[in-house]
Amino acid sequence: MNAIKDSVHDWISLDPVAADLLDTEAFQRLRHIKQLSTVRLVYPSASHTRFEHSLGVYHLAANALDSLGIEGQRAEHVRAAALLHDVGHGPYGHQTEEVIRRHTGTDHDELGDLLYETDLVGVLDRHDLDPDRVAALVRGEGELGQLVSGELDVDRMDYLVRDAHHTGVPYGTIDHGRLVRELRYRDGRLVLAEGNVATAESLLLARALMDGIVYRHHVSRIAGAMLERACERLLVGDLAVDEFRRMADHDLLVALRREVPDLGRRIERRDLYKRAVWAGIDRVPDAVTELDREDERAAAREIAEAAGVDREAVLVDVPSRPELKESRSRVVVDGVVQRLEQASEMVGALRATRRAQWRLGVYAPEHEVDAVHEAARGVLGLP
Amino acid sequence: MNAIKDSVHDWISLDPVAADLLDTEAFQRLRHIKQLSTVRLVYPSASHTRFEHSLGVYHLAANALDSLGIEGQRAEHVRAAALLHDVGHGPYGHQTEEVIRRHTGTDHDELGDLLYETDLVGVLDRHDLDPDRVAALVRGEGELGQLVSGELDVDRMDYLVRDAHHTGVPYGTIDHGRLVRELRYRDGRLVLAEGNVATAESLLLARALMDGIVYRHHVSRIAGAMLERACERLLVGDLAVDEFRRMADHDLLVALRREVPDLGRRIERRDLYKRAVWAGIDRVPDAVTELDREDERAAAREIAEAAGVDREAVLVDVPSRPELKESRSRVVVDGVVQRLEQASEMVGALRATRRAQWRLGVYAPEHEVDAVHEAARGVLGLP
Amino acid sequence: MNAIKDSVHDWISLDPVAADLLDTEAFQRLRHIKQLSTVRLVYPSASHTRFEHSLGVYHLAANALDSLGIEGQRAEHVRAAALLHDVGHGPYGHQTEEVIRRHTGTDHDELGDLLYETDLVGVLDRHDLDPDRVAALVRGEGELGQLVSGELDVDRMDYLVRDAHHTGVPYGTIDHGRLVRELRYRDGRLVLAEGNVATAESLLLARALMDGIVYRHHVSRIAGAMLERACERLLVGDLAVDEFRRMADHDLLVALRREVPDLGRRIERRDLYKRAVWAGIDRVPDAVTELDREDERAAAREIAEAAGVDREAVLVDVPSRPELKESRSRVVVDGVVQRLEQASEMVGALRATRRAQWRLGVYAPEHEVDAVHEAARGVLGLP
Amino acid sequence: MNAIKDSVHDWISLDPVAADLLDTEAFQRLRHIKQLSTVRLVYPSASHTRFEHSLGVYHLAANALDSLGIEGQRAEHVRAAALLHDVGHGPYGHQTEEVIRRHTGTDHDELGDLLYETDLVGVLDRHDLDPDRVAALVRGEGELGQLVSGELDVDRMDYLVRDAHHTGVPYGTIDHGRLVRELRYRDGRLVLAEGNVATAESLLLARALMDGIVYRHHVSRIAGAMLERACERLLVGDLAVDEFRRMADHDLLVALRREVPDLGRRIERRDLYKRAVWAGIDRVPDAVTELDREDERAAAREIAEAAGVDREAVLVDVPSRPELKESRSRVVVDGVVQRLEQASEMVGALRATRRAQWRLGVYAPEHEVDAVHEAARGVLGLP
Repeated sequence: MNAIKDSVHDWISLDPVAADLLDTEAFQRLRHIKQLSTVRLVYPSASHTRFEHSLGVYHLAANALDSLGIEGQRAEHVRAAALLHDVGHGPYGHQTEEVIRRHTGTDHDELGDLLYETDLVGVLDRHDLDPDRVAALVRGEGELGQLVSGELDVDRMDYLVRDAHHTGVPYGTIDHGRLVRELRYRDGRLVLAEGNVATAESLLLARALMDGIVYRHHVSRIAGAMLERACERLLVGDLAVDEFRRMADHDLLVALRREVPDLGRRIERRDLYKRAVWAGIDRVPDAVTELDREDERAAAREIAEAAGVDREAVLVDVPSRPELKESRSRVVVDGVVQRLEQASEMVGALRATRRAQWRLGVYAPEHEVDAVHEAARGVLGLP
Repeated sequence: MNAIKDSVHDWISLDPVAADLLDTEAFQRLRHIKQLSTVRLVYPSASHTRFEHSLGVYHLAANALDSLGIEGQRAEHVRAAALLHDVGHGPYGHQTEEVIRRHTGTDHDELGDLLYETDLVGVLDRHDLDPDRVAALVRGEGELGQLVSGELDVDRMDYLVRDAHHTGVPYGTIDHGRLVRELRYRDGRLVLAEGNVATAESLLLARALMDGIVYRHHVSRIAGAMLERACERLLVGDLAVDEFRRMADHDLLVALRREVPDLGRRIERRDLYKRAVWAGIDRVPDAVTELDREDERAAAREIAEAAGVDREAVLVDVPSRPELKESRSRVVVDGVVQRLEQASEMVGALRATRRAQWRLGVYAPEHEVDAVHEAARGVLGLP
Repeated sequence: MNAIKDSVHDWISLDPVAADLLDTEAFQRLRHIKQLSTVRLVYPSASHTRFEHSLGVYHLAANALDSLGIEGQRAEHVRAAALLHDVGHGPYGHQTEEVIRRHTGTDHDELGDLLYETDLVGVLDRHDLDPDRVAALVRGEGELGQLVSGELDVDRMDYLVRDAHHTGVPYGTIDHGRLVRELRYRDGRLVLAEGNVATAESLLLARALMDGIVYRHHVSRIAGAMLERACERLLVGDLAVDEFRRMADHDLLVALRREVPDLGRRIERRDLYKRAVWAGIDRVPDAVTELDREDERAAAREIAEAAGVDREAVLVDVPSRPELKESRSRVVVDGVVQRLEQASEMVGALRATRRAQWRLGVYAPEHEVDAVHEAARGVLGLP
Repeated sequence: MNAIKDSVHDWISLDPVAADLLDTEAFQRLRHIKQLSTVRLVYPSASHTRFEHSLGVYHLAANALDSLGIEGQRAEHVRAAALLHDVGHGPYGHQTEEVIRRHTGTDHDELGDLLYETDLVGVLDRHDLDPDRVAALVRGEGELGQLVSGELDVDRMDYLVRDAHHTGVPYGTIDHGRLVRELRYRDGRLVLAEGNVATAESLLLARALMDGIVYRHHVSRIAGAMLERACERLLVGDLAVDEFRRMADHDLLVALRREVPDLGRRIERRDLYKRAVWAGIDRVPDAVTELDREDERAAAREIAEAAGVDREAVLVDVPSRPELKESRSRVVVDGVVQRLEQASEMVGALRATRRAQWRLGVYAPEHEVDAVHEAARGVLGLP
């Protein structure tokens, strides 16, 4: 097999390294990790996986390298990194990232020893590729690393288009052909060539619209909070975090149903908690907006006690402050490299929009919602 | 929620019955059953589920009923049947159908007591719908049952378009809008109105092309044969078939890895057997083309012995003789209702084409392929 | 024929009024008026016509009326107005609008006596529809007129999606299904229901992105300025403006080649003027940004004299100040109807963005560009 | 400009030769020749032009050459031929081909002196390309000519997909990516590699379905017959055929309205003749199926006299016998090159199907249809 049919990019040609990497157990595992985890509880067509996404990122990386005239071993390392950029993901992708970080101190793009501990190292060796260099590229390091992980990376370009295709929500459908063609290096920085402020803005806007309509849909957030709580409880038990992070979606779903049946069964059959509180940033005390996961759990326990309900029946969900990574992408304007946030008025507006979209969530089983609502107002100091 | 975003039909509006059925455990289970099971080992984008397909079939049924002017309780029953037509599927859909049939004597469209044993019956009762009537419609019985299961059913129309969308293979993209608009009843038979021989042919051809390129791709067939064998072995153990058939994909995958690790792990990480024999119908003795599943296993054991390999290392895969259900669809030609096979020369040609595409497969682990090839020729009497 | 295949909305069903209107000479003329006139000199696939666009607007109007529960004669009038909203266009659509306005004082959506003077009146009469009421709806008057022409009209929804489909630029692909479903009337005003600020923003953003990338592309603006000048010269001759405005694209193209051959032939074979000046708003004196068409021509003459070139060899193109009609669309926020500009920070940013995108253009034949550049700086007072 | 946005293939990169050829008057003329001429009277979205199609063919030729490993001057000639393959078309493309052939004895792919008489020769010279070699490739001569014009040419691949995109009829959407990748040369013949019988069949089927549903739709055939008659009458007048064949669509439409107003106005406003006869091949005497254009006109005159109607009021339309050029495409089967008609049963069936779809048409103004029907039966000897 040297070309794979993809529903987004049509045919994806594989170089010999990619063809061999594809065949490893570590990469095949990505077939069993859905790209959008709990989002598919809202958009039922969105069952696509990190396997096909990784192929798409590889494909766009190859196109970008061609367009930039980068060849040989340097290009091989970048393509390998693009293909492998998600092998460090735990089950349910981003949804378990925070749990894993708390238990291990590492992120999914910290491949660490993973390349050495799996059958990936053998393939890299055989093709004379350096695992450390691949890992560094996945972390976004160096000139070429920006292609894999950065404000203008091909990861973002693939997932926006792919998520649009699979959810049916059109707003992620960017012109990746143009973005890839307009990439340039200036003083070691990846930038968009002159005349592409609007191109950069389109990427930013696509991300912002998809965020509001898809990625942070409240149903997905509720299910995500339930999943995260269930995973915490799973890790309190016998399960080692190292085993946990190597699970795939099906392993986790079965484990949760068995070990944390109250939440596990609810997630599996989409019997979700409801919103007891859903409050905009202006209604929430500053201190609350800065709660970390530990604080959230403490607050949830306090609310549960105040409401007289089971302590597992309350979830507090404080999203991170809005961030706009794309706003720091670089564009050439009148011959000078600028950050998009300098070149575009859109960035400030999007920051404000995302601030306006921010919501504190407190979730509980449907019949407890009223009691939890009252208790949460008191505990969190809401008006 | 009264409208759901779908990547194929855009927005699908739900009537109150459908909205309630959607919320049952029995229907939510379909989120965890992939539409194309092992096909996604060839077409990685094809991770879509029977959940979204069922919504699509419901949507097309609603359109067809509107176009035919059928309303009220009769229409409600048909829409419910369209939505529920796949709730009887076991894990991995069609791939486990034969196993379940052998152990229970029933097919996936035999809902039997399923409607009564699950939370579906409560919803149907509450809306004054008759479970037996719904089950009969799913079996394709009666005038209206033809819409749900028959040569011109909306099931077929949805899956062709949906599988094309998700695999990226264009040939399933039929003009379902036209098909639905041209449906008529003549003497209790569902037919296509005058002037639609080509419309009917397009359905037949779409199915035939998708069959060759997608549904019966040899990689999918190999994985399917491995899965079926693994399931047989699972059922030899402690697992009751009733529990088995209610599993979802993730349950089965975990169970196989635990209970039948040799095959289970191979399926999970796509480490598949290879073709030791791949023979066209003219090279295969007639008796062999008629082997049933018991015979296949016996032949496989015999081949394994002759080759001196483990008995689990040989799989014999005799596909059913080509069938063209669509060829019996009815079209009005010059005012007279005809079967498509009378009205179109294409039917005969497609029969011949599918006969030419038929292949006997014998599969084995890569390093046993040569030995198994030789042994199989002897045992099966191949030239 | 009661259903027409459309590449954007698939099948469009026609009511009896629409079927008859379609068959008139006045409506068939729209087959010969391209939707995007000079834009197709940049995006070669964009040859679509106002005929198909009008069908699309009719289709979305019918969906919106269904969703709003509006039926009977009121709905018939709206659907007729939606279908006919563009029959008042001159050749090359918006590109000749200004010329016609100067010579007649009316806009393309002022159908005036047009309904009475063409074969449209007969069809409307036969179906008991009132031409004056249809004309008022086309002007956007009354409660229902907002559906046809207003901040949330279906005209906009169709052209964004259609222009995206035909140019290949994805940014116009809005979720029209959702927009149409979320329309409501509040106190006689067309609004989007609660929870749709992002929906309204998506419309605004789609329009803004398409504006920058497609509608105001500089090549299209140059060709448009050449066309407008050529039309002015044509109307200085024998041609009556009444005859002019009833031409279709092919008539105009042939007339220009014959009567204004220097510009006519250039437009026909895309041999366009080049930019001698292309200046952002901060570099242009305020007085210049407010020039009207008369002033532009006077300035062009002055520049031509100063440069010592033929007076037809200079075109001055001062675009109107950025306007954002969509910013005044209404959305329900926390139960209160608000203008989008109150509810969304995006509006201000888009205003700034469009201000930043504004460019004064002075165009001339390639070999005169340098001379014209120098002369224009002096005449227009540019730095 | 070195990349052009296309609604079918996304971005098309131009080599320097193509960029220069694009800019010639002879090539720009293709902007004004619609791809599907009268078909857009049935499918209103199908206004696309030979300009964008030519770009698409160029793009697929470039991909095919890459895949086949053909480079340098040989490849440059093929790409130029692909881009220019339609510059010999008269107005309304294939619809005037027969008229031009009768008056000049040459076909549209006989570029003859055209390359030398236009501004194309200068561009070819400047890039050291031989006009005669380009013209030979357009005629399909030599090994490489098969890529441009032959059973597996890229012309066919582009127009099927493009016509599907613009009409909205899905059946032309072939997998051109696969077709292009599987092309090989065997003994100087262009073939599809082993394992591609179904690939070749899919091309054949796409063409056959589009033929029935789109290309030979009866409304398009009626308009085409009217157009051809009108052109014949135009050429009886002062117009030289050399001038005629260099017209573009808009020139012809204006000329017909002025010189042949009865038919010209009808075509322009889609006021078409109706079918007085529409007879399958079994009802038509063999002699009639073999009438050429001269005979058709004679028969039409005879029918008009017998019916007592104006002689311009009758059109006789005898389509050519079904032909299946794609059936002669070559595929490797078990190592041996075969014609598709040997390798596939589909070919025979499609021949039969197309025979069954064949219709003799006699057309007349609506109010003359009955009289013409009777007269035609007598004159043509129909039952």
